[in-house]
Amino acid sequence: MYNIDLANVKSIVADIVAKHNVENVAFVGCGASKAELYPAKYFLANCSKKLRVAHYTANEFNYDTPDWLGDTTVVITASLGGSTPETVKANSVAKAAGATVVSVTHAAGSALTKEADYTIVHGFEANYAAKLEKMGYVLALAVEILQQVEGFDKYDKMIEGLTNVFEAAENAANSARKSAKEFAEKYKDAPVVYVMSSGASMEVAYSTSICLMMEMQWVNSGSFHSGEFFHGPFEIVDKDVPFILLMNDGKTRPVDARALTFLHRFDALTTVVDAKDYGLGNAVDSSVITYFNPLMHTAVFRVYAEELSYVRQHPLTLRRYMWKLEY
Amino acid sequence: MYNIDLANVKSIVADIVAKHNVENVAFVGCGASKAELYPAKYFLANCSKKLRVAHYTANEFNYDTPDWLGDTTVVITASLGGSTPETVKANSVAKAAGATVVSVTHAAGSALTKEADYTIVHGFEANYAAKLEKMGYVLALAVEILQQVEGFDKYDKMIEGLTNVFEAAENAANSARKSAKEFAEKYKDAPVVYVMSSGASMEVAYSTSICLMMEMQWVNSGSFHSGEFFHGPFEIVDKDVPFILLMNDGKTRPVDARALTFLHRFDALTTVVDAKDYGLGNAVDSSVITYFNPLMHTAVFRVYAEELSYVRQHPLTLRRYMWKLEY
Repeated sequence: MYNIDLANVKSIVADIVAKHNVENVAFVGCGASKAELYPAKYFLANCSKKLRVAHYTANEFNYDTPDWLGDTTVVITASLGGSTPETVKANSVAKAAGATVVSVTHAAGSALTKEADYTIVHGFEANYAAKLEKMGYVLALAVEILQQVEGFDKYDKMIEGLTNVFEAAENAANSARKSAKEFAEKYKDAPVVYVMSSGASMEVAYSTSICLMMEMQWVNSGSFHSGEFFHGPFEIVDKDVPFILLMNDGKTRPVDARALTFLHRFDALTTVVDAKDYGLGNAVDSSVITYFNPLMHTAVFRVYAEELSYVRQHPLTLRRYMWKLEY
Repeated sequence: MYNIDLANVKSIVADIVAKHNVENVAFVGCGASKAELYPAKYFLANCSKKLRVAHYTANEFNYDTPDWLGDTTVVITASLGGSTPETVKANSVAKAAGATVVSVTHAAGSALTKEADYTIVHGFEANYAAKLEKMGYVLALAVEILQQVEGFDKYDKMIEGLTNVFEAAENAANSARKSAKEFAEKYKDAPVVYVMSSGASMEVAYSTSICLMMEMQWVNSGSFHSGEFFHGPFEIVDKDVPFILLMNDGKTRPVDARALTFLHRFDALTTVVDAKDYGLGNAVDSSVITYFNPLMHTAVFRVYAEELSYVRQHPLTLRRYMWKLEY
């Protein structure tokens, strides 16, 4: 019911691999879409023994295009509406260099699909699981590329996870309402909110900060890796300074746990969204669970953002500049 | 007078390349040192056609160690005092996997040097240029690795830049005092300060935010790429919201310039530290200038941070937790 089309992903990658010698994979997007590419980048960069993996905000890719971009490169771009000008331009830059482009978007026929060699159209509105499809498809592309280019001993576990995680995340989001309401009450007047995570979820923290807080709520915010917390940011901790920790189940859990201990010790205003509390381990094998935290965090925190927007009477769709002005 | 020992770097890399088949280069550190590794990572990831390049906060490397770590990997670690526990541990993790470790530190004989195969000791106290030596040595290592492993057509230009940039940055810092005092007066009561940059200087913005602002001034702060500004953060812009833009001379300058135009349009409280204003182009060839912005930005902004600390009567060395508690 909540599954993505893994067979289509497999077939796209098979076609690419049949035609090209894949040596480089570049993930390119902007804002929330850039962040949604990160779990796949994290997975592929850590698990591949041969591929070169890169991740760019689109205009950096466009203006400082890497020297190696060419016909051994697969460029994976993403944009919800498919019209983000910088990302559409990145497709042109990639094609001009001879790269293969796979674009992931909610908008069939959008500008992003025009130059793409392959397009995957993902859901969004239906439910919380649908809002994860973009991130999930990109992760599935990375898994298939790794398997088909060099083989991956945990491939079956990754496919199992990609099959199960959407329903698990949907259920998690639907059980988060009460906690989300408590969060909204506690944070509604916060002058600034910090967001932390680690591992594959690092850019969920980033997009929570720059999109959900700054863009959609006009709340001051910063984000950083929970392992970096002790090398600068923790000096800002004081009683009632607001933090959100997206806590991972998997390899970097001890890094998150150390930050949490410190936050509690000094009575910071702390909200923890722990993938373990939401049963990620029931849906995904422990050998690969590290890579599935971002889907769980994104689904659950969406509910938190909704409740915050209700209490603050500030719809998540309200903008002062975006969609209104030329810039 | 302000030069680093490029011959030593060349000789270290020659020794590594004679003994090992170098396929991967991992840069590992924490906080400011992690950020000071970024220009080298940025350079090598964009310019190398064969090497795989990665960049980690140390505890992520320790807890989620990449599958490919082994005897074809050079791990470059950095720590000012040489005692950062996570980075010292990273040396052990790297050595246990058979990697070659090069450590860059100000502290000869420190814990970081114990397991390192090669150690480079850099200056710090003497002047502003000396504070750039860590970043400069790491960039020099990346340049030598690229040249000796696969060749680099702009090698001579990079060496010329590495020879000239320290004096240029020292002179820039010494001419920044007046602007820095103006900045300090304007920002001394700012409740939050945002820092932006792009390209090789992205993590100068990051360390300016998490170290100079949060750690050393207990001022709320966030940082992001100037290309990401339009995909979330710009919705926080309002009259008098404080921003710092570390503006690059080189390929990503148009990305920074677009953000600046927007900040001016909406009367944000804007401070620009522009590498072009400080004559970076007189010291470094235009074909490689992109990679030298971080040294100029770091030198000049150090003066800005000093002046802010004087006006706020908050020494840059004041801490509430760091160096005081176990955590």
